[in-house]
Amino acid sequence: MSFSPLVDRLLESLRVLPGVGPKSAQRMALHLLERDRPGGERLAAILAQALAEVGYCRRCRTLTEAELCELCRSSRRDERLLCIVESPADMLAIEEAGGYRGQYFVLHGHLSPLDGIGPEDIGLDQLESRLSEGEIDEIILATNPTVEGEATAHYIAAQLEDRDIRLSRLAYGVPMGGELEYVDGGTLSRAFNGRLPFSSV
Amino acid sequence: MSFSPLVDRLLESLRVLPGVGPKSAQRMALHLLERDRPGGERLAAILAQALAEVGYCRRCRTLTEAELCELCRSSRRDERLLCIVESPADMLAIEEAGGYRGQYFVLHGHLSPLDGIGPEDIGLDQLESRLSEGEIDEIILATNPTVEGEATAHYIAAQLEDRDIRLSRLAYGVPMGGELEYVDGGTLSRAFNGRLPFSSV
Repeated sequence: MSFSPLVDRLLESLRVLPGVGPKSAQRMALHLLERDRPGGERLAAILAQALAEVGYCRRCRTLTEAELCELCRSSRRDERLLCIVESPADMLAIEEAGGYRGQYFVLHGHLSPLDGIGPEDIGLDQLESRLSEGEIDEIILATNPTVEGEATAHYIAAQLEDRDIRLSRLAYGVPMGGELEYVDGGTLSRAFNGRLPFSSV
Repeated sequence: MSFSPLVDRLLESLRVLPGVGPKSAQRMALHLLERDRPGGERLAAILAQALAEVGYCRRCRTLTEAELCELCRSSRRDERLLCIVESPADMLAIEEAGGYRGQYFVLHGHLSPLDGIGPEDIGLDQLESRLSEGEIDEIILATNPTVEGEATAHYIAAQLEDRDIRLSRLAYGVPMGGELEYVDGGTLSRAFNGRLPFSSV
């Protein structure tokens, strides 16, 4: 129910945005129509342009409108380190945390035989040719700490066995700033099993 | 910081949406680019179309792409009742509550001399000509229960004094389903002053 068929269609199409229900869609549509038409026009134009032009980096498969993303073009990144992540969002999170200065490779998902997602669907053939360029010393398998992410990491590790590349994964443990009381059991056991000498902390 | 200038511009332009901060903008952009390009394209197209075509109803000033909105064209609404609201969102809220079967008039704001918003800016000249059509018995002043909304309602009431039209406003009182403990003092005093004989409840 609304004012007009076109506004109704706008409300409905705003619902494709994650986390946007009927109430937020209404608030957004009315805000743009009543208070910020130039902002809305800019959003419509840039969204259309981004969807038409943004593809995947030829080298690391992250999202970019260029052939190579800014990170792959940068001369200030360590060419010998490669971090494999499931999604561009993971890559962004690692970049925002700072500290990592190597390269990336984005799988855009994880292996999931039941859903028909195999090695090619997550770009592992492309990873092979990336590695054949031959300058990488270490690969950090930074897939999600979920059953599927772990399985994917193990699969990739098995594929790379014959190569002279060091493999590592992110450390498991209790998250910083959290309270032990609220940490789940699986994480707690991992943190106990991986305990370190106090001096190294 | 992101992957590419175009994705950065998309993140930035999503921030025009109310309630969308950097994190949600990122989630939305990645969702559309990674998982729902057709939905994103539909959103871009309909948003552009709505911004270009949706204007104001000639009669009630609500948002519509037609000359008259669906409500003004409907033959099933009571022509003798007119409800004046500040925004299309208020009109929607009243429609969703159900029960009201009259017409509307949308001010798109309230009087605010300090911001230079005078009677013409909220369409009061148009309201005059709307009333000159001469079929309205009662006007319900449903501006917001705020200082500005009340002032606007009083101004409109003064303008209409000479006409043979009954004026009313929404009842003030405690909201249904609330707990008295959490109702603000102003609302509580209003509810006390407006108390009704128990039998009428």
